[in-house]
Parts: sequence; C-alpha cells; structure tokens
Amino acid sequence: MSGSTFGKLFRITTWGESHGPGLGVVADGCPAGLPLAVSDIQAFLDRRKPGQSPFATARKEADQVEILSGVFEGRTTGTPISLLVRNQDQRSRDYGNLADAYRPGHADYSFDAKYGFRDYRGGGRSSGRETLGRVAAGAIACKILKQLNIEVQAYTRSIGPVEIQAFDSSQISQNPLCMPDSQAAAKAQEYLEVCRKKQDSAGGVIECRIQNCPPGAGEPVFEKLDANLAKAVMSIGSVKAVEIGDGTKAAYALGSQNNDGFCYGENGRLAKTSNHAGGILGGISDGSQILLRAYIKPTPSIGQPQNTADRNGQNISLEIKGRHDPVIVPRAVVVVESMAALVLTDALLCGMSARMDHLKKIWNP
Amino acid sequence: MSGSTFGKLFRITTWGESHGPGLGVVADGCPAGLPLAVSDIQAFLDRRKPGQSPFATARKEADQVEILSGVFEGRTTGTPISLLVRNQDQRSRDYGNLADAYRPGHADYSFDAKYGFRDYRGGGRSSGRETLGRVAAGAIACKILKQLNIEVQAYTRSIGPVEIQAFDSSQISQNPLCMPDSQAAAKAQEYLEVCRKKQDSAGGVIECRIQNCPPGAGEPVFEKLDANLAKAVMSIGSVKAVEIGDGTKAAYALGSQNNDGFCYGENGRLAKTSNHAGGILGGISDGSQILLRAYIKPTPSIGQPQNTADRNGQNISLEIKGRHDPVIVPRAVVVVESMAALVLTDALLCGMSARMDHLKKIWNP
Amino acid sequence: MSGSTFGKLFRITTWGESHGPGLGVVADGCPAGLPLAVSDIQAFLDRRKPGQSPFATARKEADQVEILSGVFEGRTTGTPISLLVRNQDQRSRDYGNLADAYRPGHADYSFDAKYGFRDYRGGGRSSGRETLGRVAAGAIACKILKQLNIEVQAYTRSIGPVEIQAFDSSQISQNPLCMPDSQAAAKAQEYLEVCRKKQDSAGGVIECRIQNCPPGAGEPVFEKLDANLAKAVMSIGSVKAVEIGDGTKAAYALGSQNNDGFCYGENGRLAKTSNHAGGILGGISDGSQILLRAYIKPTPSIGQPQNTADRNGQNISLEIKGRHDPVIVPRAVVVVESMAALVLTDALLCGMSARMDHLKKIWNP
Amino acid sequence: MSGSTFGKLFRITTWGESHGPGLGVVADGCPAGLPLAVSDIQAFLDRRKPGQSPFATARKEADQVEILSGVFEGRTTGTPISLLVRNQDQRSRDYGNLADAYRPGHADYSFDAKYGFRDYRGGGRSSGRETLGRVAAGAIACKILKQLNIEVQAYTRSIGPVEIQAFDSSQISQNPLCMPDSQAAAKAQEYLEVCRKKQDSAGGVIECRIQNCPPGAGEPVFEKLDANLAKAVMSIGSVKAVEIGDGTKAAYALGSQNNDGFCYGENGRLAKTSNHAGGILGGISDGSQILLRAYIKPTPSIGQPQNTADRNGQNISLEIKGRHDPVIVPRAVVVVESMAALVLTDALLCGMSARMDHLKKIWNP
Repeated sequence: MSGSTFGKLFRITTWGESHGPGLGVVADGCPAGLPLAVSDIQAFLDRRKPGQSPFATARKEADQVEILSGVFEGRTTGTPISLLVRNQDQRSRDYGNLADAYRPGHADYSFDAKYGFRDYRGGGRSSGRETLGRVAAGAIACKILKQLNIEVQAYTRSIGPVEIQAFDSSQISQNPLCMPDSQAAAKAQEYLEVCRKKQDSAGGVIECRIQNCPPGAGEPVFEKLDANLAKAVMSIGSVKAVEIGDGTKAAYALGSQNNDGFCYGENGRLAKTSNHAGGILGGISDGSQILLRAYIKPTPSIGQPQNTADRNGQNISLEIKGRHDPVIVPRAVVVVESMAALVLTDALLCGMSARMDHLKKIWNP
Repeated sequence: MSGSTFGKLFRITTWGESHGPGLGVVADGCPAGLPLAVSDIQAFLDRRKPGQSPFATARKEADQVEILSGVFEGRTTGTPISLLVRNQDQRSRDYGNLADAYRPGHADYSFDAKYGFRDYRGGGRSSGRETLGRVAAGAIACKILKQLNIEVQAYTRSIGPVEIQAFDSSQISQNPLCMPDSQAAAKAQEYLEVCRKKQDSAGGVIECRIQNCPPGAGEPVFEKLDANLAKAVMSIGSVKAVEIGDGTKAAYALGSQNNDGFCYGENGRLAKTSNHAGGILGGISDGSQILLRAYIKPTPSIGQPQNTADRNGQNISLEIKGRHDPVIVPRAVVVVESMAALVLTDALLCGMSARMDHLKKIWNP
Repeated sequence: MSGSTFGKLFRITTWGESHGPGLGVVADGCPAGLPLAVSDIQAFLDRRKPGQSPFATARKEADQVEILSGVFEGRTTGTPISLLVRNQDQRSRDYGNLADAYRPGHADYSFDAKYGFRDYRGGGRSSGRETLGRVAAGAIACKILKQLNIEVQAYTRSIGPVEIQAFDSSQISQNPLCMPDSQAAAKAQEYLEVCRKKQDSAGGVIECRIQNCPPGAGEPVFEKLDANLAKAVMSIGSVKAVEIGDGTKAAYALGSQNNDGFCYGENGRLAKTSNHAGGILGGISDGSQILLRAYIKPTPSIGQPQNTADRNGQNISLEIKGRHDPVIVPRAVVVVESMAALVLTDALLCGMSARMDHLKKIWNP
Repeated sequence: MSGSTFGKLFRITTWGESHGPGLGVVADGCPAGLPLAVSDIQAFLDRRKPGQSPFATARKEADQVEILSGVFEGRTTGTPISLLVRNQDQRSRDYGNLADAYRPGHADYSFDAKYGFRDYRGGGRSSGRETLGRVAAGAIACKILKQLNIEVQAYTRSIGPVEIQAFDSSQISQNPLCMPDSQAAAKAQEYLEVCRKKQDSAGGVIECRIQNCPPGAGEPVFEKLDANLAKAVMSIGSVKAVEIGDGTKAAYALGSQNNDGFCYGENGRLAKTSNHAGGILGGISDGSQILLRAYIKPTPSIGQPQNTADRNGQNISLEIKGRHDPVIVPRAVVVVESMAALVLTDALLCGMSARMDHLKKIWNP
C-alpha cells in the first residue's frame, strides 16, 4: 500500500507529484446536499499558494482547481468529489546531481530504500505540493462543519524564537506570516530576513482552535479524537511534535492544577472551569474549545553547502540552487486547519451511530 | 463504531471493562510460524501490573493471561490469537456519588454525552485497565520484531520536574519508576512521596527507542511511520503530547542545525552524521535509531476534594476515596513500548508489497 | 492478515479453532442502549447446534455463550461486546493419517500451502465451528434490526434434488431440516437416509428474506448492498453460488419481463409491481423484500474411501472415520441469516451520514 | 460513506458521473517498478468502448485515458496512479420526464430515497460508465499478474438462451459478443436482432478463468478469495448471481461426486484429479484453475412503453428514447476480468505476510 487514503466515512485519497501532470484528491463520503462551488475550494488553495510573501518561494503556480465529479446543480450528490489541479511547470530541466544526491532532511534516501528508485523531480510525492490535495478536501470539510456552526481556525504561533504575545484573530489574514499579533509578525519577518541572508531556514509552531464542537465526538480507545488529530497533523511533512491542550506542560503539572472541574452555569448549561485538557477527555470531545499545536522543523532545503552522500556510494558536498522558502510555517497553517477539519468531520460522521435512538431517528422516524 | 481495532495487516481488537468479567485482545494477522508461549505475554503483562511499587495502586490483580486460539504446538498458525484476562474483583460495591459525578480529568462526562449513559464502575472502558489488551498484543509484536533483530525499549525520562541525567539501560528494570538513571529515580521517588502526602499526583515523560529498524518502513503520505506512532501513543489515555526525534525543539532550530547529513563509513555502509530527525524521513524509516517521547498528564484521580458537577444538574464537591497511584507513568512504559512495536510490525507487514521484485520473491520464486 | 474481521461500523472479529480452548467473537460498534441478554445470543447458537436431528453430527457440544464485555445493566454500552464459547472436547486424540492427509473438498492442502503447516485437529480454523462467532454476532445484529421493525428469516429451500413446493413460515422451526414445507421436509429426510447408507452426503439451497427494510440502505458502487451480501454469504464455508432476486434466471429473461415497474398505491405509498430485482436496485435497497439464495455443496467428509494425497508426497486411499453429517444445510440456515443481518446492520449504520440533513439532525438538533 | 474504494493493499478509488466532466480512478498501492504505459490501459478501455458492434450503443465516446501520477520514466513509483478520462459529451440537453421518472430496473428511486435527490443525467454515478475506472485499474492489476505468469481471461458464455458449445479462446476477440464459439456467437447475434426489433433487451452469462494462480492466495474466514470475487463481481451493475466452480450445480451433487481428490503426478507435483471446486478450497487458492461466472440481467433501458411512477407522486407511462444496447454482456466481459484481477492482486499482496519466513526474506535477507 502507499497509504494515500485518509478517513473512514469521510475519506480522502490524494495523488500527484510535484513535477508530474498534476495533483488532486478524491473526497468520498461527503453527505449529499452540501452547497459547494469551485470558489469554496479555491479560497483554501489560495491560502497555501506560494509567492504571497517575500519569504515564500517565488515560483509561479496558479493552482487552479477543477471539480470533476460529485456536484450537481451546486450541491454535493453524495458521490465522490474529484478535484484536479494541473501543474504549470513540468518542463524537463537539468536536475544535475540532485537526481542522485541524498539531500539532508529530505526523504530521498528513505524513498530509495523503500521503492528502489524515486521520482527525484522537486521531491516527487514527498514534495510540499502533496498537501494541495489535503487542503482542497479540507475546504469541503470546513464547509460541512460550518453548517453545524463549528469553526476551525489555525494560525502561526511562533517563527523560530519569535512567539505571539497577543491574540487578535482579525490580524491572522493581515500579515504574510498568519500571526494573530502584528508586532510579533514584524519581528518574525526580521528574523526570517536574517535567516535568508545566511542561506539558512527557520521552523515554527502552528496552533489550531476548534470552536463550538459538540460533546461526544471521537471514540474511546484507538480512534480517540486526539489520537486522530495527532496522526493527521504528524502526517504533514516537517511536523515533529503534536500537542493537545496544555501538551508537554501537562507532564510537569500536579493533578490538582491540571484537572478541569465541571460546573453548571446560571443558564443551566454544563461547562468546564478551565481547559487544560484542550477540549478532549478520554478521546471524546467535551464541548469546550479544542486546541492543538504542531511543531514544524526548519525547511530542509537551504542554500549553504552541506556534506552528504549520493546513491552511487559517494560522499559529496551539496549546494541546492534556486530560491527556497526560508520558512514553510505560514503556508502550512491552512494545511493544519484542513487536517483538523478532516478528522473532526470524519469523527462526526462515524459518531452518528453511537446510540440506538440515533439509529431510529434516521431509519425509523 | 467504537474504534477498538488498531492496525491494518497486524491488527488487534481489544475489549473489556475495568469491572466486567474480563479484558482481552484478538491479534489478527500474525504471521504463521512464530514461537509463542503464555510466558512471552505474561512477562509483558507483569510489567504493567499494579502493586509493584509504593507509588502504584495496591489493588490485587493477578492478570493471568490465557491463550484461547491461534497457537498450535508452540507456534502461531496465522489465525487470530485470542488472549483473555479475567478480572479478579467484580463484586458489586457501593459507588456512591461516583456513579453520577463527572470526575475532573476523566471521561465521565464525554462518555455520557456520547452514549447517553455509561458503565461507571472503575472507569469502565476508559479505565487504565483497557491498556492490558494493548500490552498483551504488544508482546507478540515485540517477539516478531526480535526475530528481525529489531529492539524496542521504552523507559521513564522524567517524573514531574525530575529528569534523567544519565542513561544506563540496565537500570531500567532495577527501580520501580523504570528510569535508566538510579539517582534520578531516587529523587523522583522523593517527589512522589510529597505528592502523595498532599493527596496530589504527578505526570511525566516516557521515551522509546527502536534499534536496528531497517530503512524503508512506513508510507509517504498519511501512513507515515511517525504519524502512526503519534496516533498510537496519543491513543493511550493521559498522553497529551508526542514528539519524534528533536520534537518541539526542532521548531526553534535553524535548518543548518537540524539537517542530518548522510555519509558512507569506512565499511561502505550509509549512515547519518546526526539524528535530529529521530530515524524517520518523509514518514519512512531511514535506518538510524527511531526515537519518540510521550508526555503524560498527572493522574486525574486525587484525594483532595474537587469542585465539579454531576449528571443530575448539580454542582458538587467530590472526594475520590481509596488508594490511587500518584503517578501512572512507570506502568505506562510498557504500554508505550507495546504501541510502538505494534505500529512498526504493521508497517513492516504492509511494506512487504512495496516493490515488484518483492512480490516475485514471495509468489514466483 | 488473516481476515477475521467483517464490517465497517458494525464490525465483528471472530477467532477460534475447532479443537482449541474455545471460539468467540468481538462485536464492535454496536450502538449503545440496545437491551441484550445471554439468552438472545444463546437462542441463535442453539439453532446451529449439532445433535438436533438424525442427520446432524451426534457430538455433544453444549456451546454455552458468555458475555465478557460491552453490556451493563442489561443494555449495550457502545463498547465492544466480547462473546466466548468454550470447546468441551479438547482432549488429545489420535488423528492418525488425518494429520498429514489432504482430504478432498477440505482446506487442508490450501492451508499448508499458505501457512507452511496447520492445526489439523477437526479442521482447525476452517472447521464449521468457525461459524459460531458469526452466529453469536448475528444474534446482536438481528436484535438491532428488530428494533427498526426489520425481520430477517432464512430457511432451507432444497436438499439435494428435493425442493420446497409450498411456503409456510410456521413450519420452518417444526422440522429438523428448517424447511417451510413439511412434505418436502419428509421427502428430503428420506433422501438423506439414502445418502447416509451410501456413506455419501448432500448439499442444498438456503433462501433468506428480509422484510420491511427501508429504502436507501447500501452504497452505489463497490459497497452495494447485494455485493456485500454476496461476500458475506460466499464467505461461509461450502457456499458455491449466491443469487439476489431472480438470480441466474435473470440472465435468460427479456428486459420487458425482468423490469419491475413502480406504482403509487391507493394509500399514496410507492411500491413496485413485481420484485425480480430482489429488493435492491443499483446496490441500494428499494423498500421491497430483499431476497437471496445460497447454494451449498455436499459435506466433503464422507465415509467412503477416497483417493487423495498427503503432505509427505504419497498418494493414499483415505477413509474418514466417525459419524459425519450427511448434510450441513439445516445448520447453516442460521449462519446465512446471521451474515445477512450483519451486512444490513452495517449498511444502515454507514448510511446514516448520507445526507446533510441527517448530520444536522444528530449533531445540531 | 459512498463506498467508492475497493481493495486493501492494492486499493482503487473510482469517481465520476456519466455526464459530468469526466471519470477516473486512483490506484493506490501498486508495487514500484512495474513497467506501465498509457497503451496498457487504453487497450483495456477500448474493450469496453461502445460502438464496436451493431448491438452496442452508437454514442461516440473516445475514452482516451491520461496518466496523471505515479509513473516515472515508464515505471510505477509505488505512489498512487491517477487516471483520467474526460467525458466528450456533456452538453445540456432536455431530459424531459427522465429527470423525474423512476425508470424500471434502474437506481433512480433508490438513489432519491438515499440522497434526497440525484444527478439524473444518463444515470449519473450508477451509469454503466462508472465501470470505466474499474477497467482502467484492472489493466494495471492484469499487468502485475502477468509478471507473475498469472493469466485472467473472461468471455461471454451465453446471451439470452444461446450458450457456447465449444471453447476456442482465439475466437473471443474475433466476434463482437466475445464468445469463444463462433457458431454460438452467430446465433446470439440473431437472437439480439429479434430483441432489438421488439424494442426489448437480453441478459447473459460471463465466465472468467484464472490460469496459473499459485496455491495460498486468499484468507480463511471473511476474506476468502471466493468471497471477495463474489463481492467484486456482484458490485458490477446488473449482475444478479455469482458462481464459483460448479456453482449452483454443486448443491444438487453428492459428496462423492463433488469432492476433488489430490494426486502427485509423475513429475512429483501435486494436482487435483478434478476441479469441481473451481480452484479455491476453504477460501484459499489450491493451484488449479480458478473459475467463476457472473449472471447479468437484461439491460433495463428498453424502447417499449413501460408503466411506472415519478418522484412527484404520479403513475406514468414511460418511453425511453434514443438508441440503447439490447445487451450489455459483451461490454461487461472486460469489467468482470478487471474485477477478478483486482481481487487476486490484492489477495497476493495481502498474503505476502502470511509466514514468518516471508517476513525475514523481505526485511532481513
């Protein structure tokens, strides 16, 4: 298997290589009757498009999406939705020693070890362009969730050592780094300018909040909502750690500090008095805000010469030419948001059959 | 679905509640011809048994496992291996307000929200006893891996603020906290003694190393080896963060620091000159040591009175009686090890069909 | 994999060998709140018990089932339901040349070819006793369906050349052959008596009707309701053909004969004016009676000497000693019924998410 | 879910509607290193193309396939292979009462019942064009099998009452009905001419043979090779029955007739002395020829007026205009062949991990 399918009932299958004819996704299991237009999906793809900031690669990629199936008269029909994005730039070029080199921090060697050879053009299947299909499908998931009044929002929490000190959600779309703190964004840009001059790169942290998720989503043992969020986020290239709620800090707290009490408010509604858990208890959503963080390593393609080896048994010094993003974090924000939305949508679909009274409500009303 | 199945080709299904007749697991897809005895599995279960240290609950649980199927004349037959552990203590007792209370940090409320009611005895399905099936199956996975010379080893990295300063693997089994540093273990015991006196609890960090994993295990996109490790580990109750390799630290490093170069040694074998990546590149093992960490929250059951609510619309003050572990980290060590072994075993089985020449080797030799 | 799991949301995993410690099933994904007692399951198991007629094997098998998990205070909790039946008779006995022989019509050779060796005692995993887990889980599925007013009923349509000429459903439980026609049952018994005297065996046909299934169950392409019924029924040992509705006859009919028209009745309800399709159109239930047939080969274990080979490279003459059923059809009736119920239950659970308005009904009411 | 994915390790996802922008398939899990060209796939698609005989619809459909991913320098890379066929004819036309009518024998009503509405143009997702993706993927599966010397061949066994009396495999491609008996083909053409004049339609039987399949493919319980073949074939629109080996006839035979003995030949190789079982015992291939049959109902679209109902509560008389195939059997031959090849390929990939020695051969050679 090559593992290009994700989800159980809302199930996506992505395909495509960086320099092949195109990339795409088939989203299967979308409920019928959802209004869906090309613009819904294009808006998400535009958020991951390069060339939007001085810190992202300047390659021209239009990334125009086409809906090939599953939508009729503006609504989903319940059948698979196939989405296609053509690659603009497939001309054959000289990859020089990149075809044989094992670039540090890249999947070149592990691909060769697994498959015996690889499509070396632009990273092939393990290029960042692979996330295009995730984002296109994430747009559909987000639209489903919106119909249930659930909102998923990701943003940049930090770039290198520069972390946000404030949270103003209106700022997220106002700076190229997707930070909800304009001052931090300005500092982070300075930091990236330094990285670029040194032909080096930076990582960062993406945070994602899910508002208004009803309690009861997720399953108790292996299909815990947090477990699937962890897998979804860790499956994004370059993510090296995932946290839910207080995350790593919880390991250092006392039980009396970390426990969240329940409390009925004046409106008679149950809520928690704190949210160290990040909205999930025992793998199941508890009705409070779901919070997760993804830690992203610095972009492995850097301009500095690096010592490494090639597939012919030679140790080499490698210089990766061309313009490279000194940071991929801002472009990955919408990828994290998409993966979180995909997981939650699938959990909600799977959770419909948790109770006999639900079953009767649908099949024997 | 209730999501009690894990894995694709090496696939386990766990079942059982804390105070029902028993717990168990069905391990399906184990290759035929593996020598397997009750003692192999019992040895693993004994490692998660309570009552082994002053910091673990004193309840008497023999946890004797029985092999019900899948083994014939000392070897696995290729058919499902069913393992059963009877609960010793199922007598009806008075759960008082625990039957109705929503305990802070527990899954009581989210279970009620999902299913409409719950088996409240001892946490039911979301009890820590649920991990028993994982560990029993993990014993089988570890035995398979050993036949391939692969070793999986987990241990306690920290308890509360006390972190190991040395690594001596022979120490791990020599202290009740499973720490590879006897001095840190002594300090951690002191810390736990304080926690206990305050009727409070502590969390900690478990680290897991996989030695000698061949390159090529894992899939490039959604079924990345690290993604499945993240899911596996996050699906263990109380885990709030997962890291691979440098983990969260990678987000703050420069590319030039974080990249691992490749190098042919004098023996002509390819290796990496550092291992920030933790043995996985692009989701696929790269032949170096695989390293992961699980961050575990403090045990939610504490003796102090806590403010919370119940299912009848009342805000209450809750006192959880009885002896409780002030820390579950040491007992979770073998659970992390088991989950890591299950993920890797499944990845190796699934990866057999990655190449046409493999297919010919098996079916047309 | 060994493929012992069936179903997507209502998912069963069976395990066990004929002469091991026991057999069982884990039924995962059962909705919470279903009343369920041991007697519900025992009633189904008793229907497949041997020793009930002169034409079934006289071995004593009590087949008492135990519920090990998933039920609390008489209702399912939504967690996996583990069911266990101990084998009564596991003493070691002399299997003589049966341990090495490749019995005609049995899986002995194909098991050896696949796994390298096999548990030869009583057929091991490929014994008819394997169906015990299917039937135990089928009892749960039937109980779910009953709550939705859906009824599944299987019966013997023919034994060897003797086919029913009448249908009186009250007769099914009144004769040991499960035929809805007492005269045919009497003739079939005579036929079987002849078979037995000749140390030979017979096959037959089982028919299954599903009444009151709502329209809309099943999926349009690969997960067609009829496709999954075909798999489910063909996965029962000894079944060699499956039909839906008119089945093989449809291939010889004209379109004008085979098409079923739709018609609104006086009550304003839509119905079909005929049911050649057997209640399924395009893979999706159409609201009329679902009808399927399973064709079962004669029991392969016969008393006559047979020419065959063994695993040691020898051609041998084999005599299978002991009492053997001259027919397994009547005992397989409840197996067919169970498999049909499992498929339909799973289809109903999976189908809950087909429409956005369903999703809102459950998650945002 | 909408169930558009088939297979476990060799896994295909089809998408597309009859009158949308196009149809296609993503084939995931293809082993790396398989030589694959557009012509391999086009050759299969051409076999299902309409307009090849006077008995198939005359609509112009070029059905040119494009490979969008997964192939590099003429070989598969192990990543998903995305195949696209554009629909030629998507212009809006007047569907008249077809948009509202429930055509007899079609999925119109069951789709409406499931999804609330449907893409009524040309049958939408339940059009015969849906099989295009199956065939494109089937071409890949057949190429894999050929590398293992396994050959899959399907042909028409009968059309209406006209059955083949001879078998000459070279004839199959020599007549438009794909019959291995030229005389039967001529008679069947006469029969179809009569059907067409009466504005009626015919069904038929397709047979499929798999030569040289090694023993050991398939799993013992639910994932039996015959069970998956039954599902695969029954999931093709219009198939109403599936047989393996002797099929329905086995139900009427005696055990002594139906059992196949084993025998070592002069070459020392084990074989069976007959093949009533159709090459599968206990769900696992036994090394002899695998044989299956699919029974196909007459094409439901006929020119005669038919009594039926519409979605607006009216009983109507329906006349379906336009040219329609009086038989779809010949075009379905390659679909049956493709589905059989997909099942077997997946079984071979899944079966690689059945034995510990296989695991060592791949991962620790």
